[in-house]
Amino acid sequence: MILVGVDAGGTSTISIAYTCEGKFIGIGESGPGNFHNVGLENAVNNIRDAIYKSTKGLKPDVACIGLAGLDSKYDYEVLSSALKDLAKDTIIEHDSFISLYAETRGKPGIIIISGTGSVVMGYDGKRRLRVGGAGWLLSDEGSAYWIGRKALRLLVKMLDGREEKTLLADLILQKLSASGLDDLIKWAYHEGHKIEEIASLAQIVDIAANKGDKKAQELFYLAAKEISNDVIYISKKLGIKTAYMSGGMFSSKLFKSYVVDLLKKEGIIALDKKKSP
Amino acid sequence: MILVGVDAGGTSTISIAYTCEGKFIGIGESGPGNFHNVGLENAVNNIRDAIYKSTKGLKPDVACIGLAGLDSKYDYEVLSSALKDLAKDTIIEHDSFISLYAETRGKPGIIIISGTGSVVMGYDGKRRLRVGGAGWLLSDEGSAYWIGRKALRLLVKMLDGREEKTLLADLILQKLSASGLDDLIKWAYHEGHKIEEIASLAQIVDIAANKGDKKAQELFYLAAKEISNDVIYISKKLGIKTAYMSGGMFSSKLFKSYVVDLLKKEGIIALDKKKSP
Repeated sequence: MILVGVDAGGTSTISIAYTCEGKFIGIGESGPGNFHNVGLENAVNNIRDAIYKSTKGLKPDVACIGLAGLDSKYDYEVLSSALKDLAKDTIIEHDSFISLYAETRGKPGIIIISGTGSVVMGYDGKRRLRVGGAGWLLSDEGSAYWIGRKALRLLVKMLDGREEKTLLADLILQKLSASGLDDLIKWAYHEGHKIEEIASLAQIVDIAANKGDKKAQELFYLAAKEISNDVIYISKKLGIKTAYMSGGMFSSKLFKSYVVDLLKKEGIIALDKKKSP
Repeated sequence: MILVGVDAGGTSTISIAYTCEGKFIGIGESGPGNFHNVGLENAVNNIRDAIYKSTKGLKPDVACIGLAGLDSKYDYEVLSSALKDLAKDTIIEHDSFISLYAETRGKPGIIIISGTGSVVMGYDGKRRLRVGGAGWLLSDEGSAYWIGRKALRLLVKMLDGREEKTLLADLILQKLSASGLDDLIKWAYHEGHKIEEIASLAQIVDIAANKGDKKAQELFYLAAKEISNDVIYISKKLGIKTAYMSGGMFSSKLFKSYVVDLLKKEGIIALDKKKSP
C-alpha cells in the first residue's frame, strides 16, 4: 500500500509518499495547486505531477490532499470530481485544517497561513472556525498577493506624483523589468492577471523594508495588523491562546515579528509551525 | 463628409455622427470599449457597432475616439493599429482629455471621471497632468469598480463574522442571487473576473447608503476622499480651482455631495459636466 500526503498551495505543490509500514518512498514537487488562481486543468496537472514524482510513478492507494482554494461547497464538488482518479482512494481537505492537524494532532489551536493567499482557522477540539481564505478578490488580507497588490497601487501613486518616490519603487520596477508607468500598465493588463507574480512582490517589499524603506515597513505592518485581527477574532470566539504561523510570508523576519508582537499584546502566543517531516 | 465622435468607456460606447456642415446623422450605442477589461476584440467590435449605428451603416471620413484604457504608449500602439480601419481617418485620444475639452473648449480646467474606472486630469492651457486611470488593478481609486471590490471584501467579513452584518450584505447577496459565502466564492472565481459586474455593485452601495447603512456611507466617503485627494493634488500642481465631474458615479447624489464638500474645503469648485449635445 502506498499512501501520499499532498500540500497543494498557491505557489507550489508538494507530495510525500510512504508505505503503510512507514517506509519513506519519495517527495515530489510541482507548480501551484490552487485552481482559483491557475485554473482547474493546471491545478490538477500539478497535483498529479507531484504525486507521481513522489511515488516514482506508481498509483497511490490513498492520497490525502490539502488544498488551497477549497473554500466553498462548489469548490469541494469540482475538486472531488477532478481529483478522484489520482489514487484508489482520494481524500480532500482544506489546507488550513491539514496544516493545523499536522501541528496539534487534533488538539485545540489556531493556524495562521499567509502565503500567496491567507486564511486563519481555529479548532477547539469540536468546532472549526475559519475566516478569510476566500481568495485574492474577496479576502486574504495580509497575504503575499494582498501585499503585492497594495505595493503596485502605491507604486503607481509614486510614479504619477501622488506619493513621494522611495526605494520600493525602484526595486519593484527592477523586478518587473519595467522602466515606468507605461511598462507597468502593459505588464498588468496585456497578458492576463498574474496572481503569483503579484504575490512574489511581497519579497521585494521585504527587501525594501529591511533597507529602511518606511513605506514598505508600513505596508508590512498593515498586513500584519489585518491578519492579527483575524487571529484575535478566532481566539476570542474559541478561547484559544496559541497560534501557529505557516506559509511563505513568515519567512520574512519583519512580518513575523509584527504578527508575534501584535498577538502578544492580546495574550496570544504565536509559534513557528514545525517543518514537514 | 461624415464625422463621428466616440466615447468608449468601461460600461458602454456611444458614437455621434454629423456631416461636415453640422447636420446631425445619428447616435449609436453599444457595450464596453475599454480593452483592458473586455479584451481587444470585444472592445473593437463594440466601437465598430456604435460607429456604424450612428452613421446608419456608412464608413465615416473622420472618427475621433475617446478611449478609456488608453493609458500607456503600448495601449496607444495596440489601439491605433486595431482601430485604424474604422474610418478613413481615425484619431484616438484618452477619454479624459476629450471629456475635459468638450467642457472647456481648450481652456484650463480639471476633469474628474469616475465610472467603471476613474481618472483625474488637469489642463492649464499647455500642460496636461493625469493621475490614477491606470485601471482596476493598479489604480482607479474612488471608481465604481474600486467601491464594488471594497464592498465585496466587506461582505465576506460580514459573512464570516469579522464585521457586523448590515443591510448592505443582504442587498449585495440579493443582487448576485447568492445565498451566502459558498455562492459568493463560486461567483467570484468559477467564471473569470467580472469587472463590470463588480463595478455595478456601487449602485447597491448607493441604495444601502441612502437607506442609512453606515458602512455603505463610510465606503462612499472613503471613495470620495480618495478621488478628491487626486483633484487637490492636480489643483495645486497646475493652479486650477475649477473641476468638472463626469461618469456614472456622480449619478449618486451622496457620492457627489461628498466630493463637492471635500473639494470646497480646499477652495475648489466642482461643477456638473454638461451633457453630450
